[in-house]
Amino acid sequence: MAGEGEFDFIARRLAPLTSDHPGAYGLKDDGAILAPPDGCAFAVTSDTLVEGVHFPTGEDPFRAGWKALAANVSDLTAMGATPGPYLLNIVWPKAGFAGRVDRFVDGLAQAQKAFAMTLVGGDTTSADGPWTLSITAFGVVKAGRTPHRGGAKPGDFLLVSNRIGDAYLGLQQHLGRAIFSDSSLSQHVDQKFAAPTPPVVLASILQDYASAAIDVSDGLLGDINHILQASGLSTHIDLGDLPLSEAGRDWVARQDNEPAARLALATGGDDYEIVACVPQESVAQFSAACAQAGQGVTVLARLEPGTGLRVTFRGKAMDADILGFTHF
Amino acid sequence: MAGEGEFDFIARRLAPLTSDHPGAYGLKDDGAILAPPDGCAFAVTSDTLVEGVHFPTGEDPFRAGWKALAANVSDLTAMGATPGPYLLNIVWPKAGFAGRVDRFVDGLAQAQKAFAMTLVGGDTTSADGPWTLSITAFGVVKAGRTPHRGGAKPGDFLLVSNRIGDAYLGLQQHLGRAIFSDSSLSQHVDQKFAAPTPPVVLASILQDYASAAIDVSDGLLGDINHILQASGLSTHIDLGDLPLSEAGRDWVARQDNEPAARLALATGGDDYEIVACVPQESVAQFSAACAQAGQGVTVLARLEPGTGLRVTFRGKAMDADILGFTHF
Repeated sequence: MAGEGEFDFIARRLAPLTSDHPGAYGLKDDGAILAPPDGCAFAVTSDTLVEGVHFPTGEDPFRAGWKALAANVSDLTAMGATPGPYLLNIVWPKAGFAGRVDRFVDGLAQAQKAFAMTLVGGDTTSADGPWTLSITAFGVVKAGRTPHRGGAKPGDFLLVSNRIGDAYLGLQQHLGRAIFSDSSLSQHVDQKFAAPTPPVVLASILQDYASAAIDVSDGLLGDINHILQASGLSTHIDLGDLPLSEAGRDWVARQDNEPAARLALATGGDDYEIVACVPQESVAQFSAACAQAGQGVTVLARLEPGTGLRVTFRGKAMDADILGFTHF
Repeated sequence: MAGEGEFDFIARRLAPLTSDHPGAYGLKDDGAILAPPDGCAFAVTSDTLVEGVHFPTGEDPFRAGWKALAANVSDLTAMGATPGPYLLNIVWPKAGFAGRVDRFVDGLAQAQKAFAMTLVGGDTTSADGPWTLSITAFGVVKAGRTPHRGGAKPGDFLLVSNRIGDAYLGLQQHLGRAIFSDSSLSQHVDQKFAAPTPPVVLASILQDYASAAIDVSDGLLGDINHILQASGLSTHIDLGDLPLSEAGRDWVARQDNEPAARLALATGGDDYEIVACVPQESVAQFSAACAQAGQGVTVLARLEPGTGLRVTFRGKAMDADILGFTHF
């Protein structure tokens, strides 16, 4: 999308998304002016999504737009940051993007409204290659109060928000490898896979109570391992404790090997839920604040000195052959 | 670059570039924490460069790394912003990137040192497509003192920094279309094309004196036109007034059609110099401050009410056939 096409796309479709931020100059300038509120800082995160790598080739562009923003909102939430401005960098494939532009911007517009965000800048170009979207998102944090991966302490409890595994089941359904006879369950997992809604209301609660947090984007066990490595701690997760949705329980009940099925849900990725580490004395207040905000949380483990993640199912060690298939 | 290769690249080569910014958490977290100094705001700009589109296929990766950062520094300078932190998003081509990584990071490291910047985050992935680099750069501006494209007023003078056209001549030399018998001229235009150094010291001077500014990245006349359109003004540029380097004068003297040759230099792009609009009463102080900072400036025109850019050569209207080949 070179020359006039690019300028027209920016002026006609993207510029209206900046109307809440005068410092974006309607995308007519080389950049935007941004400042956090007094006493606050920005948390900044950036994700690149490539068609055929991070979302399926031929994906509905509406969903691609939504998911690109949601992935960054999930990162911000884990940092205790309330989403605000964002930049969008697009590389359109030279062939065959024209039919996608409007659906994509519609998805982006709906997501930015849902997450209370505003486009403020970016870049648009085209090339002989796959459709590529980079989003750089800014969240507001109270200065000095950001949970990060390395902040957990021995004795902290490890909790996860809401349900785990539905996005994995949505992907399997998309690939024709999982079937739900109940259409409400089918729609539920499709929604969690294609148009996830990170629990943004947890951001300020994490700021108040969490010693460490991460969003579940590489799979629950993998992301727990990121915290353990960054904080220099160990823990033990029992797959019987996984918080499953009705769809998750329905699917697990139909699998021959329950530990393997639960392990798939705990390593499948893209849940966009939050893993939080909370000091023992704050667990009750943290859980109550989450419930007040309409978000379920489940205690999964307590953190201990040492290194490594031990995984069991109902107290029994997992078969090494099963664990060997995963990379967490 | 998926899996361990990606994590290793980030930890081994990119994380050391963040050592000046604790809020980058050594690239181990989902994002970075940033805040401008008290009383200041961030100017934020983002550019995506695709191999084969924005830099030549097979480009020395050292130069690609340098140029990616320089392009953003140029935008920040035009906004009166002093460069600071930046994010880097890379899509490596699946085939054949291994030999490029070290040279690329060396170029990036040298550029970030030259421009006093610090890596704070980003994303790394790989795909079947061209090498793609997105840089999002933050500059610090005094709140409320940012020159932008739409701020020029009738009667303001229009000035340009240093020399124009050398990057165009470097590209032509790279393509085998321009030859310099003097090796120092040859090296000069190659340097301006492949490893440009935007005049960052002008940022604070622009904040103090300029009503509007833009960096020359689309060609001098095209970028002047962006200011005219955003500010709702007109002006007249005489190509005889172009500030040319010794290489530029040498090359022009060897061309059959001088007006066409000068027009090529004035529309060729990527000079990464600054066009500034300055109120009449501040032109002398602005010029003196630039000279003090070691940067030449040339007055090119005065801005008038109306619309459009009139181009002449030594007072004579340009041939419509010549102008017709350009897009500014």
